[in-house]
Amino acid sequence: MTCEITAALARWVADSDYNALPEAVRREAQRTFVNFMGCALGGCTHAAVATILAMVDEFSGPRQATIIGRPERLDPLNAALVNCMSSAVHTFDDTHLKSILHAGGPVSAAISALAERQPVSGCEFLHALTLGVEVACRLGNMLSLPPARHNLSLFMTGIVAGIGAAAASAKLRGRDADGIQGAIGIAAAQSAGIREMHGTMCSSFVPGNASRAGLFAALLADRGFTTGPRSLEGPKGLGNVFGAPAYPDAVLDGLGVDYEILFNTYKPYPCGIAIHPAIDACLEIIERHRPNPETIASIDVTLHPVGAQLTGKTDPTSSLEAQVSVPHWTAATFIHGAAGIPEGADECVRDPIVIALRERVTVTGNANTAPSEARMVVTTTEGSIFGSHVAHCRGSHERPLTDAELDQKFLVQAGPVLGDRNATELLARCWDIESARDMRPIIAASAAPRAAKTAR
Amino acid sequence: MTCEITAALARWVADSDYNALPEAVRREAQRTFVNFMGCALGGCTHAAVATILAMVDEFSGPRQATIIGRPERLDPLNAALVNCMSSAVHTFDDTHLKSILHAGGPVSAAISALAERQPVSGCEFLHALTLGVEVACRLGNMLSLPPARHNLSLFMTGIVAGIGAAAASAKLRGRDADGIQGAIGIAAAQSAGIREMHGTMCSSFVPGNASRAGLFAALLADRGFTTGPRSLEGPKGLGNVFGAPAYPDAVLDGLGVDYEILFNTYKPYPCGIAIHPAIDACLEIIERHRPNPETIASIDVTLHPVGAQLTGKTDPTSSLEAQVSVPHWTAATFIHGAAGIPEGADECVRDPIVIALRERVTVTGNANTAPSEARMVVTTTEGSIFGSHVAHCRGSHERPLTDAELDQKFLVQAGPVLGDRNATELLARCWDIESARDMRPIIAASAAPRAAKTAR
Repeated sequence: MTCEITAALARWVADSDYNALPEAVRREAQRTFVNFMGCALGGCTHAAVATILAMVDEFSGPRQATIIGRPERLDPLNAALVNCMSSAVHTFDDTHLKSILHAGGPVSAAISALAERQPVSGCEFLHALTLGVEVACRLGNMLSLPPARHNLSLFMTGIVAGIGAAAASAKLRGRDADGIQGAIGIAAAQSAGIREMHGTMCSSFVPGNASRAGLFAALLADRGFTTGPRSLEGPKGLGNVFGAPAYPDAVLDGLGVDYEILFNTYKPYPCGIAIHPAIDACLEIIERHRPNPETIASIDVTLHPVGAQLTGKTDPTSSLEAQVSVPHWTAATFIHGAAGIPEGADECVRDPIVIALRERVTVTGNANTAPSEARMVVTTTEGSIFGSHVAHCRGSHERPLTDAELDQKFLVQAGPVLGDRNATELLARCWDIESARDMRPIIAASAAPRAAKTAR
Repeated sequence: MTCEITAALARWVADSDYNALPEAVRREAQRTFVNFMGCALGGCTHAAVATILAMVDEFSGPRQATIIGRPERLDPLNAALVNCMSSAVHTFDDTHLKSILHAGGPVSAAISALAERQPVSGCEFLHALTLGVEVACRLGNMLSLPPARHNLSLFMTGIVAGIGAAAASAKLRGRDADGIQGAIGIAAAQSAGIREMHGTMCSSFVPGNASRAGLFAALLADRGFTTGPRSLEGPKGLGNVFGAPAYPDAVLDGLGVDYEILFNTYKPYPCGIAIHPAIDACLEIIERHRPNPETIASIDVTLHPVGAQLTGKTDPTSSLEAQVSVPHWTAATFIHGAAGIPEGADECVRDPIVIALRERVTVTGNANTAPSEARMVVTTTEGSIFGSHVAHCRGSHERPLTDAELDQKFLVQAGPVLGDRNATELLARCWDIESARDMRPIIAASAAPRAAKTAR
């Protein structure tokens, strides 16, 4: 890695002009924001969020920032941490499939907190969001596309999303290329993430930390805090430390022409992305054959080997553990005929009927199966055999969520927290973000009214 | 890694009894604390500290914690960050040579902040310090002793010191084995550190973050925030992610019998530890031959290959960059006859006379040279040749700093900040820590009086 990746990337962020972004990219940035806001509202009453909020509340500085979906307020750094966790805690967020990265939450939460400290227009916000996502995804590609080897034990969001959040925050702070390069370096110094704690509260803590670290880096860089100029490509930099080897060309090739945000996808189901093809197969079999779950003798699921490895947990005991369990989601979908937040809740995971069916699920990894593909064979005690082949699951790049599906995803999460009318109003404001002269009212509208009762 | 390392380590921390610690270990914990306090006072006016302090000051929560050597106060999490940075910024701290880890600062800063929130006796403090250092060093060994391969691009302090700080903080919070295991897991989720930014303000930011992350983890674990039980040894855990491969037996073998704090050393010179043998060689040649620096034609230094690689920077432009420059410190030592904080300052690094001499220094890595060893040959324009062979440098495990040298190191740093009388008084209090029923007065005595002028 001899070319100056960090400097070139920072210069691109500094020089970027919102009006020159392709229309499709601007639209995708809006979809990213709508999805973030909905997911943060969907996760804001989760126990992981309530737990970290109670802790950081004791240590909060000036309460300048909204906590999405809640009446509390926090200082901007802690707000970035908590709001990003809310958006990530149901694993219902977005996914950059090439690098298995969830960039939208860390970047959005960081710049939302910033947009309550200084006036930021909707277009400025979307611009920073686009750039931050681009930076994070391109670094994700550097660490996962061949010839790089994807180290699946590293939690990619923890490694690169904070750098995206830093670049976006520095851009909003009006910094030049040098300043953005500094923010990137300070964020890279905080890069972290291992997957052993997946399926616990730490799953959303890592992206939350990335969001806070990115904002922290940008605010520190503002004051001239120093870092190395080659934090990404240097011999002891991000690529070489976490890449082993990395694919440096992935960062600059096609920069400003091929936008990674167009390869970002939104989850239709609140669980690990590798489970989604299996859920679609369940829903297809249900629609065609309506099997009685009590008569199901066995369910054989074939997935991409990486998906099978990451989400093969056979005996989840909690909602968080179930996020990486194909057997749970397969069983729950057959029993409830749906795969939403209720099907991932503790009660459903501990339901003896679901457990009994999940024990009849067998998951096989197959190298000839694509990541968005699933094959399923259901055998009943009556001797029927139902099969399904999902070539591309809902929410995949080939079969993206429509805007209407994204609306539905938003409202089902926002309604219980804000009330249906406020939720619909906020959704309209989110779609209308380009005409916002100041982002503050939009973000403030996501708070639960002070008097509101929020479920814990 | 199939044995339950995380659980066993947590249980050992939970069950440990201060009075059962060997006398030598308790003594070493005191030396660690004296060294930490002196170094934090030595670094507290550094620009890196002033810069981060100005930023986090805006975001501080309740100002319950002392900032060592300064009149400001911060919330405990930010205090851990800043105080640890102060202790690390001159790279004058401690070193666990087996793993090239600086554990004392992150652990001490975290529990100092905690000791201002709740009553903590001196013995409880030393006990937590000992356990936190032990945890960090053993994890450092897991990642660096053969058969593990030491990945020198990873900044070991960022990877494991936060886990030590978490274990120490959880112990002080009176948590049982399960609680300590949880704190370890939450800290492991925040492990990070790459070396590309060494020689910038990020050098001390990484240990500072580790300190804050450890305290954060312990406070979060207190509230039941969940994490995985095998964060250290699991297939996607710390050892396997950062070890490649790791040496798991290093964690539990001899635990409670062989204490790693006895292998912790204190730096006699404020620069990268690998430079120290070269400085000793300079001082030896100066004492024996008193060469006129103007007549030095060339200086050839032979070091351990890793030392030569980590500290071979030939053209530092600032104090921070010079911390990893053997040529600078060799030249500065010959010109000033000493190697203290003034010899590492920007003015000295930019002094044309020092630069001219440093350009005549050649550094060679030699596999037959031990890490604490140096050979030096000085050739003068008059044709004289002076040689020196340092078998073990000052501050090495074989030639540890005496208590008197540690006192001297403390006073030279504390005097300019607190005044000589207050410094001497604080030093006596630090040595008398075992008789302290409450740590608060000791920590409070390290603050600069509010009226005091602190250099920036």
